[in-house]
Amino acid sequence: MAALFPINRSLTGPGVVETLERISAVVPLQVTEVPSGTELLDWTVPDEWSLQGAHIADADGNHLIDVADHTLHVVSYSEPVAATLTRAELEVHLHSLPDRPDLIPYRTSYYSRTWGFCLTQHQREALGDGPFDVLIDSTLAPGTFRYGEAVIPGTDTEDPTEVIVSTHTCHPSMANDNCTGLVAVMAIGGHLLRHPPRRTHRLLFLPGTLGAIAWLAQNPDARERVHAGLVIGGLGDTDPLTFKASRRGDTVVDRVAHAVLPRRDASFRPLSFSPYGYDERQFCSPGFDLAVGRLSRGQHGEYPEYHTSGDDLAFVDADRVAEGISAALEILRGIDDNETLDNLSPYGEPQLGRRGLYSSTGGAIDSRSVEMAYLWVLSGSDGETDLVTIAERADLPIDAVVEAARRLSDAGLTAPRARGGH
Amino acid sequence: MAALFPINRSLTGPGVVETLERISAVVPLQVTEVPSGTELLDWTVPDEWSLQGAHIADADGNHLIDVADHTLHVVSYSEPVAATLTRAELEVHLHSLPDRPDLIPYRTSYYSRTWGFCLTQHQREALGDGPFDVLIDSTLAPGTFRYGEAVIPGTDTEDPTEVIVSTHTCHPSMANDNCTGLVAVMAIGGHLLRHPPRRTHRLLFLPGTLGAIAWLAQNPDARERVHAGLVIGGLGDTDPLTFKASRRGDTVVDRVAHAVLPRRDASFRPLSFSPYGYDERQFCSPGFDLAVGRLSRGQHGEYPEYHTSGDDLAFVDADRVAEGISAALEILRGIDDNETLDNLSPYGEPQLGRRGLYSSTGGAIDSRSVEMAYLWVLSGSDGETDLVTIAERADLPIDAVVEAARRLSDAGLTAPRARGGH
Amino acid sequence: MAALFPINRSLTGPGVVETLERISAVVPLQVTEVPSGTELLDWTVPDEWSLQGAHIADADGNHLIDVADHTLHVVSYSEPVAATLTRAELEVHLHSLPDRPDLIPYRTSYYSRTWGFCLTQHQREALGDGPFDVLIDSTLAPGTFRYGEAVIPGTDTEDPTEVIVSTHTCHPSMANDNCTGLVAVMAIGGHLLRHPPRRTHRLLFLPGTLGAIAWLAQNPDARERVHAGLVIGGLGDTDPLTFKASRRGDTVVDRVAHAVLPRRDASFRPLSFSPYGYDERQFCSPGFDLAVGRLSRGQHGEYPEYHTSGDDLAFVDADRVAEGISAALEILRGIDDNETLDNLSPYGEPQLGRRGLYSSTGGAIDSRSVEMAYLWVLSGSDGETDLVTIAERADLPIDAVVEAARRLSDAGLTAPRARGGH
Repeated sequence: MAALFPINRSLTGPGVVETLERISAVVPLQVTEVPSGTELLDWTVPDEWSLQGAHIADADGNHLIDVADHTLHVVSYSEPVAATLTRAELEVHLHSLPDRPDLIPYRTSYYSRTWGFCLTQHQREALGDGPFDVLIDSTLAPGTFRYGEAVIPGTDTEDPTEVIVSTHTCHPSMANDNCTGLVAVMAIGGHLLRHPPRRTHRLLFLPGTLGAIAWLAQNPDARERVHAGLVIGGLGDTDPLTFKASRRGDTVVDRVAHAVLPRRDASFRPLSFSPYGYDERQFCSPGFDLAVGRLSRGQHGEYPEYHTSGDDLAFVDADRVAEGISAALEILRGIDDNETLDNLSPYGEPQLGRRGLYSSTGGAIDSRSVEMAYLWVLSGSDGETDLVTIAERADLPIDAVVEAARRLSDAGLTAPRARGGH
Repeated sequence: MAALFPINRSLTGPGVVETLERISAVVPLQVTEVPSGTELLDWTVPDEWSLQGAHIADADGNHLIDVADHTLHVVSYSEPVAATLTRAELEVHLHSLPDRPDLIPYRTSYYSRTWGFCLTQHQREALGDGPFDVLIDSTLAPGTFRYGEAVIPGTDTEDPTEVIVSTHTCHPSMANDNCTGLVAVMAIGGHLLRHPPRRTHRLLFLPGTLGAIAWLAQNPDARERVHAGLVIGGLGDTDPLTFKASRRGDTVVDRVAHAVLPRRDASFRPLSFSPYGYDERQFCSPGFDLAVGRLSRGQHGEYPEYHTSGDDLAFVDADRVAEGISAALEILRGIDDNETLDNLSPYGEPQLGRRGLYSSTGGAIDSRSVEMAYLWVLSGSDGETDLVTIAERADLPIDAVVEAARRLSDAGLTAPRARGGH
Repeated sequence: MAALFPINRSLTGPGVVETLERISAVVPLQVTEVPSGTELLDWTVPDEWSLQGAHIADADGNHLIDVADHTLHVVSYSEPVAATLTRAELEVHLHSLPDRPDLIPYRTSYYSRTWGFCLTQHQREALGDGPFDVLIDSTLAPGTFRYGEAVIPGTDTEDPTEVIVSTHTCHPSMANDNCTGLVAVMAIGGHLLRHPPRRTHRLLFLPGTLGAIAWLAQNPDARERVHAGLVIGGLGDTDPLTFKASRRGDTVVDRVAHAVLPRRDASFRPLSFSPYGYDERQFCSPGFDLAVGRLSRGQHGEYPEYHTSGDDLAFVDADRVAEGISAALEILRGIDDNETLDNLSPYGEPQLGRRGLYSSTGGAIDSRSVEMAYLWVLSGSDGETDLVTIAERADLPIDAVVEAARRLSDAGLTAPRARGGH
């Protein structure tokens, strides 16, 4: 995270290139390049932006504000400017936060040509009366929009469906939003490479909004192909983990997350879908309506450091990021292990004892034992109810139910009806 | 209300005629006349009743009780009587309220021939031992049953469906029940005449029970024609506004009321349907099962002034009636504005910025702004979810969602699938 | 209960024979006999077990533990043994409860050949160092498995469906589990013989698990034939009555129990189905999935006397058992009386007054009177909603709603669409 933090990412440009290269060293990426001007669904790829330097100087040439001090000082996608301005002329191009006077805000203007500087309220008040020499040495020209993806093939080569894990790659020096997302999806990729999943998993590193639009535009079969997915971001702040449901609200990722997360943190509270947030907005647009939820912590704008220079490396905590990664992996495993079974001995309970699945001395039972998992799986295996739903009803970990199902299947008592269940 | 209060209304008779005439001066009414003996669904129109005078006098001719003092003193539909009675003979014809000794109760006997006097418990105790000269100078003879309706044509002349707004017109001098209902529906009518609705609205001024029975009997296509409706009454007491759901419970009037009323009063609590109450009983009978709910305040019998002389002009409050009228109009507008839309750009979010629908500088957003309404409408416009449901999910006012939908439609991003949604 | 308590019941053997004989003196039973070795669904009938005596003696011949003192002292289905053992050799065959040192646990080993003694922790600690003379004088040989059933014919001879009431008959000297169940089903049988139900009721006295398996194996049409049912047991402890729902959770027995029990005890809380418990496990296995719930009090293992010698006659209370019997009878009556009606006068309310069903003087009504029941039945009689659901919505006793329905039917206002509603 320390290596990724300083890079001046934006929608396009060298910061994105460097970021994708660093990720690829851990999880090999295919990078898709899309030329400026390309139409993607309702959007058009804008010119590529690069920034060589930017400052506001006083009449004596002293740099009062300089992007070399903080990547947030320049509005992302600022057009070039070199001019001497009065204070009044400069004022309309300044962004600060009166209620948080020590923090630099984060601002962008990807699709409307303008320029601006972001600075703390204290800096703004100390600028003086001018005149000011203002320089933004940027390039906005036809170029390339890039996003990366890593495919981790599933062991079940006959299953054409995929699970996607997505994070955004476009925010400059902010740690929680979005370096924690980058690091988390890299770690998830490393884990899946070492422990291949049943279903193919596709990790998506996408510049926000346009990246997801581009991927969806170039994968028009997403509705059929994407079994489920997670958008990940903002895992390092002090809030508890939150899961925002998919638009449909009862898909497999929703049910798995609702079974997994309350067992990890009793204070977990589910969030229903809303059309604002990260790229779940695109994946859950009504035309695609994918089974994609979002794992994060604090919500947009609800913590004061959000989208400011206060979201620095000191703001995030490695243990909390690690807990987020672990929770994401448990959710992905739950999705991958989920099945709908048929009970092959559905008339009365089968005799588990003679199959070695049940203790032979009756009269005492530990109600939370593996034997309970056998009974719940047999009772729920009606060809309609999946293992995740059985786990929720039984108030048992998904893992325990999956293991019981595996042993019952080995004993010939159950057979898979269908994988997953959207 | 002061002009309507003193009139001695009943199921039929001159009080109803005078009431309909006064209403018609504000909202022109068509009055339907039905002769006595006419069969209406399971009912038969009774004889018409008129009362010229009534009293209980002592042996000296002093009028101890006289209907000239209060219209409630005579049981409505009392048959004529002129007799000298002992106290014991009179006693079975007296109605008073021992637990509320200062109030005269309201009693009727429309369908069973009898007579009686209503008086306060104090008056009853002071009557003396008799004998009493009792006179009820009434007429019960074949005549006419009347109800009024006002049709306010909708601007959409191709839509054959209607919204009904109904109140009862049969209660004599009681202010909350039912002068507030009469005044409220008159005010609603005046507003709709000045601001024509999209769908035709029909205001019904109906003597309780038999009026609704008569209107339904004479409008057998009500089930197809009535899109939704509100029964209104009892808007002036001190209780918060209450909405009683239709029998089905999830019709458009229910969903609109549940979206509108909690935003006006955080203490609002919904009531589910019950088969007792005002004329929603008839509109929601299982053969018709209309999307008709009821807007009122305190429930029948739950306030001590209910159906007594205590329900006088001092009991009701003009501001509370006005708030009820305003709430009713907001509900009616919500019903009229409701639509189900198709998102014409459902694959990913459309780019709102280039259509001038979104602020161009990213990074900061006011989560309750009109931009959120755009996102919610786009996300919800799946051809199944109507604007009212979207407003509820978004926790936004219906008006804001309707306005966002209008602008999206103007921008070519949405198109109406269907109006309303039962 | 005092007569049934001492009998040494097991899965098979003379204790079951004696128990069925004693029950048959009150409710005549048909006893089905199944030979050892018979295959029943996934199970096989084991050998029959009988016990002539059993003890642990010290070297001087003193009986330290003797089954003559308590039937729980021997593990049920212990194979014969006669040996002199060291303390260490004996130890693996002993069962006691360190956390409840005064209680003898209840243990069985029906399907795995072994032997053992159950004793209090205090007795175990006082046994001494041995050697011990151990004798279990038991017989395990091909024989007969027995269960009993009593059929109480319904008055409606055209209805082929049945209601079952089941309890287990296999537990030795424990009062709550299961003498209260035996006594309760006997009492229910006695009541039904005196007050014949509409639908045939079948009382099942079944050794746990295998009894239900046997009955289901021999009644493969159970899914079609069993309209609903109750498993009864554990009615005498100090917990409030509990109702465990059927696997489907919304069958007629569930809805009736949820309407009946909260009116009897405001602290009642429903339990959802779980695949552990009494014989509802078998009746609700997914292949049968019957509408069978369970009426009991404390849950398995949640009270310290459960499955120990502490569950003696002093532990249970006759009044609580009687309340359980009364509740069961009310549930069974609710199931039997349930119907789905068509309102034959569904357009507006029918005029109840001229049919003598409504008080003739209007203006005052007791909202909980029988008149409300008429209105609720008329409103709910839409050919889909049954009387139990109407009672729940109306917050009225099922009896009141059934009586109102009967009178409305006599008045020609309603007609039965269907009996019950699964």
